[in-house]
Amino acid sequence: MQRDQRPIGVFDSGIGGLTVLRHLIELMPEEDFVYLGDTARVPYGNKSAETVRLYASQCAEFLVRHNVKMIVVACNTASALALEVLRRQHTIPVLGVIEPAAAEAVRRTRSGSIGVIGTRATINSESYEKAIKDAADDRVVSIHSRPCPLFVPLVEEGWIDTPATRLIAEEYVRPLREAGIDTLVLGCTHYPIIAPVLGQLLPGASLVDCGECTARQAKALVEPTQSGNRSPRVSMYVTDNTPAFTSLASTFLGRRVDEPVRVSLDSIQSGGPR
Amino acid sequence: MQRDQRPIGVFDSGIGGLTVLRHLIELMPEEDFVYLGDTARVPYGNKSAETVRLYASQCAEFLVRHNVKMIVVACNTASALALEVLRRQHTIPVLGVIEPAAAEAVRRTRSGSIGVIGTRATINSESYEKAIKDAADDRVVSIHSRPCPLFVPLVEEGWIDTPATRLIAEEYVRPLREAGIDTLVLGCTHYPIIAPVLGQLLPGASLVDCGECTARQAKALVEPTQSGNRSPRVSMYVTDNTPAFTSLASTFLGRRVDEPVRVSLDSIQSGGPR
Repeated sequence: MQRDQRPIGVFDSGIGGLTVLRHLIELMPEEDFVYLGDTARVPYGNKSAETVRLYASQCAEFLVRHNVKMIVVACNTASALALEVLRRQHTIPVLGVIEPAAAEAVRRTRSGSIGVIGTRATINSESYEKAIKDAADDRVVSIHSRPCPLFVPLVEEGWIDTPATRLIAEEYVRPLREAGIDTLVLGCTHYPIIAPVLGQLLPGASLVDCGECTARQAKALVEPTQSGNRSPRVSMYVTDNTPAFTSLASTFLGRRVDEPVRVSLDSIQSGGPR
Repeated sequence: MQRDQRPIGVFDSGIGGLTVLRHLIELMPEEDFVYLGDTARVPYGNKSAETVRLYASQCAEFLVRHNVKMIVVACNTASALALEVLRRQHTIPVLGVIEPAAAEAVRRTRSGSIGVIGTRATINSESYEKAIKDAADDRVVSIHSRPCPLFVPLVEEGWIDTPATRLIAEEYVRPLREAGIDTLVLGCTHYPIIAPVLGQLLPGASLVDCGECTARQAKALVEPTQSGNRSPRVSMYVTDNTPAFTSLASTFLGRRVDEPVRVSLDSIQSGGPR
């Protein structure tokens, strides 16, 4: 069978999606990747649903023009608000981070009490609640959601394990601990970076990394390719050369990042439904 | 003399500029105002100079098309990075917040030791250092600058006087206190909201609110008008109806805010130099 040599497209509002790309590369080193970070308009998590859908559509269209065979929406906010729109606009597979993480949370929980943390837009969308209930089928689960909007700026400022970060995390996590959750979905691609702090506040709870689960599902969707030990080609695009991207990209991706190419999405009309 | 009845244009990356608009309205209740918050692309403070210049140019052009007689750049980051560009692009007066605040700091300081806090982009631009040295003329001043990027998300989340906010503020302010500053420029339009916390950490220091100083300078630039007790007309525009704008606008402006009109700036070509 002929291998589909087209790259896999991945986009996020900024650098967070690099934690997803990291898992994709680990699981599929034989694939090539095109990553787009919309750093000129980051963050998405405090913007309206309508605006997030417009931005996500432009990102997806950019990737399709780069001849990708699949789109991974490596951003919880965009996955929560724009996935259906993107699936109507494109015929290639469009994979979000929410369904894989929700399914994994249901697999892991023993008590049936699942916590979800994310941006305000992600939590307000109730996408995780719906996806977890769908995955649980007729099993009874109780879902405890909490927006944690200060985690993204803390992580981007490198305040990973400071007293202030622990204080803010304690404030956010307390109601989840009191609810007795045994599984916590890290519903934002920045959160794996502060997983150790969260783990200390929720001893015994299982933390679900949406990037890890999404990478497994992406691999299942890609047709089997010849495996090989070659290094994947990763083409990096951003809409702004922000200081944060340059300084944090290597931390998020876990490997050296080439200088990204700057592009503009303003003139891109998002595709209509097909 | 015929009064120039055109409104005064004010723009910011989001809601912060409303603290400036508040002072403008207080000092010039006989004027009308057009306010534009670029909430679809907020914040500016962590973006590149090139991108901030493009966004500021589009905001200014939008205001000019609304027939304003003056533009107040009610955003420190845009004032730091884009003021010269805007002045080349437009013939009406363009007033930033940095020069008025720098002049006021020089007037107030006794010791000559002045602190400046702002976003990373504002501090990195060194605009305040230059403006303070210009205002000081041949007086010797020492300037101590510190980026405080976590203050904007803390204020926008309503974490105004919490233990975490005080802990972060203490971390930011400590080197300024140790340097013995007697005057602190609040070099970001969000910071007046947390002035009480900063005041406790810097007892005896004078806090300079850029909005207040800028409003005084704007009044001096506007030709004298008949005063009257009428309510100013304030037309509010945003590029996205974000949750933060709706919930915080009244706090920032200190009065009830009408539902803003949503507009798009993407198709606006910024004006060339004249």
